[in-house]
Amino acid sequence: MPIQKYGVFRHLWVVISMLLLLDSSGTCVRCENAATGIEYINFIIIFCDDLGYGDIGVFGHPTILTPNLDHMAAEGQKWTNFYVAASVCTPSRAGLMTGRLPVRSGMANSKRRVLFPDSNGGLPAEEITIAEILKEKNYATACIGKWHLGHLPRYLPTRQGFDYYFGIPYSNDMDRIAGKDSDVFYQPKSDYWNVPILRNEEIVERPADQNTLTRRYTEETIEFIKQHKGGPFFIYLAHNMPHVPLFRSKDFAGKSRRGLYGDVVEEVDWSVGQILQTLRQQGLAENTLVVFTSDNGPWLSHREQGGSAGLLREGKGMTWDGGMREPTIFWWPGTIHPAIITDMGSTLDLLPTFAGICGAPLPDDRPLDGYDLQGVLKEQKKSPRDIMFFYRGTELYAVRKGSFKAHFITEYAYVKDAQKTVHDPPLLYQLEYDPSEKYNVAGQYPDIVAEIQHLAEQHKAAMVMGKDQLDTRIPK
Amino acid sequence: MPIQKYGVFRHLWVVISMLLLLDSSGTCVRCENAATGIEYINFIIIFCDDLGYGDIGVFGHPTILTPNLDHMAAEGQKWTNFYVAASVCTPSRAGLMTGRLPVRSGMANSKRRVLFPDSNGGLPAEEITIAEILKEKNYATACIGKWHLGHLPRYLPTRQGFDYYFGIPYSNDMDRIAGKDSDVFYQPKSDYWNVPILRNEEIVERPADQNTLTRRYTEETIEFIKQHKGGPFFIYLAHNMPHVPLFRSKDFAGKSRRGLYGDVVEEVDWSVGQILQTLRQQGLAENTLVVFTSDNGPWLSHREQGGSAGLLREGKGMTWDGGMREPTIFWWPGTIHPAIITDMGSTLDLLPTFAGICGAPLPDDRPLDGYDLQGVLKEQKKSPRDIMFFYRGTELYAVRKGSFKAHFITEYAYVKDAQKTVHDPPLLYQLEYDPSEKYNVAGQYPDIVAEIQHLAEQHKAAMVMGKDQLDTRIPK
Repeated sequence: MPIQKYGVFRHLWVVISMLLLLDSSGTCVRCENAATGIEYINFIIIFCDDLGYGDIGVFGHPTILTPNLDHMAAEGQKWTNFYVAASVCTPSRAGLMTGRLPVRSGMANSKRRVLFPDSNGGLPAEEITIAEILKEKNYATACIGKWHLGHLPRYLPTRQGFDYYFGIPYSNDMDRIAGKDSDVFYQPKSDYWNVPILRNEEIVERPADQNTLTRRYTEETIEFIKQHKGGPFFIYLAHNMPHVPLFRSKDFAGKSRRGLYGDVVEEVDWSVGQILQTLRQQGLAENTLVVFTSDNGPWLSHREQGGSAGLLREGKGMTWDGGMREPTIFWWPGTIHPAIITDMGSTLDLLPTFAGICGAPLPDDRPLDGYDLQGVLKEQKKSPRDIMFFYRGTELYAVRKGSFKAHFITEYAYVKDAQKTVHDPPLLYQLEYDPSEKYNVAGQYPDIVAEIQHLAEQHKAAMVMGKDQLDTRIPK
Repeated sequence: MPIQKYGVFRHLWVVISMLLLLDSSGTCVRCENAATGIEYINFIIIFCDDLGYGDIGVFGHPTILTPNLDHMAAEGQKWTNFYVAASVCTPSRAGLMTGRLPVRSGMANSKRRVLFPDSNGGLPAEEITIAEILKEKNYATACIGKWHLGHLPRYLPTRQGFDYYFGIPYSNDMDRIAGKDSDVFYQPKSDYWNVPILRNEEIVERPADQNTLTRRYTEETIEFIKQHKGGPFFIYLAHNMPHVPLFRSKDFAGKSRRGLYGDVVEEVDWSVGQILQTLRQQGLAENTLVVFTSDNGPWLSHREQGGSAGLLREGKGMTWDGGMREPTIFWWPGTIHPAIITDMGSTLDLLPTFAGICGAPLPDDRPLDGYDLQGVLKEQKKSPRDIMFFYRGTELYAVRKGSFKAHFITEYAYVKDAQKTVHDPPLLYQLEYDPSEKYNVAGQYPDIVAEIQHLAEQHKAAMVMGKDQLDTRIPK
């Protein structure tokens, strides 16, 4: 999708905008950029870690109270069929950041599924991130929170288009220094894990005081908004929570009826409220698009300290919908009108959507897997996304086309002796009728099975995988 | 809970009210009753059939769109821990109508679990229904829809306190005259079932044109509201839908992405919208309490034509929460402020709550199992309900106390060769942490197990069961 060919129109638009600026009364209605006269839109992605489809009020949780997210959904678009690019951290984040399936960048591996502190790899420099796309349009860019796309200096956010970074470069359960018993996880203390907090490229705290993570990430985000309220900005706020070990600040201790997990999610909800309130107070609400979602489904093997995928099947690590469908809200007052969107969307679509909104060119030298969702956001048009590919590592396990999802392979995660099962014919589920993937209807729809099989074969034949980044260790 | 002792205060209130009336400008702010000078509140119960906890938007369904119910919940109280009195039709309705566990009235049976067209029983005349309670306060009372508490003349709604009845006296899948193959259910036509529609005590249509049921029940309700807008009135609108066979009017054919089941629920949602709109148009919104809920969980064995309990375990027929926890909304603009209520409530509580609101005396010659929820509705106080008993037929299978539910017996419904399993010690679930009843924590909480066991024994020892009404046949 080369945007370059629209260059003439873009220049024309700049001229029109500048002419309009001459007549301007000086009142900033749509926050025109004083330097260029071009209207701009800020972007904030609020990305949770291991939050399940069913873990917030408006998506059906009975005891986790999320008034801010519920309100955000009531003012914006609640997306009920929104997928992430993979069912575990690293590849999911690589997909979001590049708009490309993580196998393309080498950020998916079937055995070592995410990056670890001993990993020598990361998101390759030649990948183009959302931040790099937006830098072309002079956005101020910040990554706040969990990165997990490479913690060696050459892979840090600051090398991938972000002006600023503050956070833990990988998961908060890595670098464990305490024992292996379950109390380490279920009655956690920050010093059981030796995870660092980086500011830009320097370690500023180790071990991280995890109790204050959500609060500090929120404060960093608010500070960045205030500092850059004049300009276009992009903030990628990737909470470490509610990934185990679960931490929340004192104010949220014992607050939720859902226990520790609920406390943690309710603090994330508080964080969302603080950020939206800041945008309103700064007069930025109408020119900021905020997207709330998570990286993958709930970590079910942690029982009460893992989340809930609601009515969806299974969770984190799996290609069942519970692993990859996330509770998602788009908020952009004045432009997005309240709606429930049942069409498909994906974190893969954020890059082309943001690029489309701000008129940044998309790379035309590589395949992208995302779609521009502007039509849905602005006019509630049908989503351009009609297909979703479900990978486990480098293998294609399932494909959704329209309302039907075919599973060619299924495999349970975090289960001892779980068997990888190949299905021929594939299992077929009508997800709009049967969101819980209970009723295999392959026998009733042989044509649809054949169509999806053909799509899968075409896709696999055309796929060029990137050089693996996950199974390389730092030399000793 | 004898209310009689408050008689003096009630008389005082009548006098005060009449004095106030003398000063009245004639403007009806709180809709005072012209005859008595007593302020009154109308009641409407909208009761669905087999609707699952997860089947409406605000309770988390991804593809069933229910804007009217979502709006009702946003304006009112969304109750997320609201239980019905039994997991199948007849006993659930007996519990709602009497405020007493259905075993007390003989309306629960472990083998023949509901009334059938050949049944000779019904809700005994000596039981006191909500309608009879409200008749004491001069309410106009209508039952519209499914009754299922006895179809012989002596058991009809008109003999149980209702001035008016219009509907099918039992389930819409009874009196089947077509064959047994699944198409009868899944591509249903009205004349496959010979179910009658009664107006008061006369059959006015047979077989019922089921396609127009939801629409006609709605029209009947609206007509009754308009006729009795001078008030007070009580309408028990018990939809036959979304119980299989599923029917919807032409306007809703193919409307929902969820297929036929979704069409049917979306028509029920339309119906709710019509009723609330009528109340607003008639100036009755602020003095009408509307309660939306269903009789039991989704009929899962009907696969895509059954509903979804969302994140709850199992469905209709079972004492797991999916069988007895229902999506519930209380709406009363001006009195109920928007809130999510995570405390427990039950259909058993409607009778004492309505009686409390209108100052009607409660029977003091029999045990009641309901609590007056006014404090929660009006002031968001803690719910007085801290215990729920889960019966299957005449046997106590489970007890919830606070956030813990103990299962002494479990048994699957609608499953061939399902085993009844006695658990000693009982299974114990912390429902606020674990709403899906996945993680048995009996070993961690022996004191709570003992406490609930004691409660169960006390309850069983004190229980006096009514004479069985369900296993008696009409003599040939």
